[in-house]
Amino acid sequence: MRVIFNEELKAVADDLDRMAQDVRRAIYGAGDALLNADVEAAQAVIDGDIEIDALESSILDQCVRLLAKQNPVATDLRVVVSTMRLASTFERMGDLARHVAESARRTYPQSALPDEAHDLFVHMQDFLTMTADRLVTMLADRDASTAEQIIVDDDKLDALHHQTFSLVLSPGWNGTKQELIDVVLIGRFMERLGDHAVSAARRVVYIVSGFDPAKEPARDEGTDVD
Amino acid sequence: MRVIFNEELKAVADDLDRMAQDVRRAIYGAGDALLNADVEAAQAVIDGDIEIDALESSILDQCVRLLAKQNPVATDLRVVVSTMRLASTFERMGDLARHVAESARRTYPQSALPDEAHDLFVHMQDFLTMTADRLVTMLADRDASTAEQIIVDDDKLDALHHQTFSLVLSPGWNGTKQELIDVVLIGRFMERLGDHAVSAARRVVYIVSGFDPAKEPARDEGTDVD
Repeated sequence: MRVIFNEELKAVADDLDRMAQDVRRAIYGAGDALLNADVEAAQAVIDGDIEIDALESSILDQCVRLLAKQNPVATDLRVVVSTMRLASTFERMGDLARHVAESARRTYPQSALPDEAHDLFVHMQDFLTMTADRLVTMLADRDASTAEQIIVDDDKLDALHHQTFSLVLSPGWNGTKQELIDVVLIGRFMERLGDHAVSAARRVVYIVSGFDPAKEPARDEGTDVD
Repeated sequence: MRVIFNEELKAVADDLDRMAQDVRRAIYGAGDALLNADVEAAQAVIDGDIEIDALESSILDQCVRLLAKQNPVATDLRVVVSTMRLASTFERMGDLARHVAESARRTYPQSALPDEAHDLFVHMQDFLTMTADRLVTMLADRDASTAEQIIVDDDKLDALHHQTFSLVLSPGWNGTKQELIDVVLIGRFMERLGDHAVSAARRVVYIVSGFDPAKEPARDEGTDVD
């Protein structure tokens, strides 16, 4: 029984790794779409979100089967429950990357961002690609120290997100109203990608250490506009 | 054993009902804060979100204990797994109501919305208070027909959300840039509240019918701005 359980758990873990890799690809692609007006990258992210959704669905099914048939306890139960939550977090990250890609596709061949916003979003995207790499490493190695880096560094993304508001509110802002909307919403999508990465990182800390991240205050504190 | 299990499941179900009621109160309060510049209502929503977070945490703990000790299968397992997801959905709805309340508190004693946006947000709020009432009924009665009304009607909220963009992009828009940001972000928070209500409704359909709502396409399709 234990051998079968561990094999089945390994299969789910492989699917979850695949999901993290798909999310990383989506984050990279969304950045290409946004910053280089690359409409093929945008379309690939949009199409690829269907696969991410299917993986979530498959992982949840497998976890429910494991719970029903194997009655895992202690660490194994923690892993199964956390896997379900991680799959849902990654599914949501796929949606957010898709939203960024959709904004880029909508304005193609123009950029969704005016020139004056370009550098700020390059910084945000650099942060998110680093985070995406860390997500994949953290999952593959169940590496709590990488998870902690994701958690600690999220403040940097929040600070960049605040700058999106300073930018559009500054007297020197020359963008259109549509560009203002895009800067605000795309900034919000990217900040939320970071929040979800933090949520995933807390889950991995929980798997490894048994410390329950649900006892931490909720994220998504960074939306006050002032 | 079965008697204990059913008692424990009943205790979790009661907590989940309480959470739905807290979310309803938060949605009502966020509307008062936003539409009547009621700063006490805003503060109550912000403070109340801590209780919602604590209820989620408690429900998740209880569900993990049930999974470990009682090894539920079939319908009972479906209920436990769905309860975990519903608790997380409600927690997120509490965050979103808090964001609306925070916007109102930030601009107090001014309204966060210019006069020309007032009627549109009254319509959105009317929709959300109806949805909040339905959520509570749906949970208390495990009523799949109320759940289906929530799912079907969400298109109306999406249509209102689209109007937030039409409003700020119209030539007649006279609001400040800050007001434009608030209309766009508060509109987004309210639209997301509706999406999460749909997600909760699908879970209830799943509990009642066994049809898995995860097989449906993901929500949050309504963010294309054009």
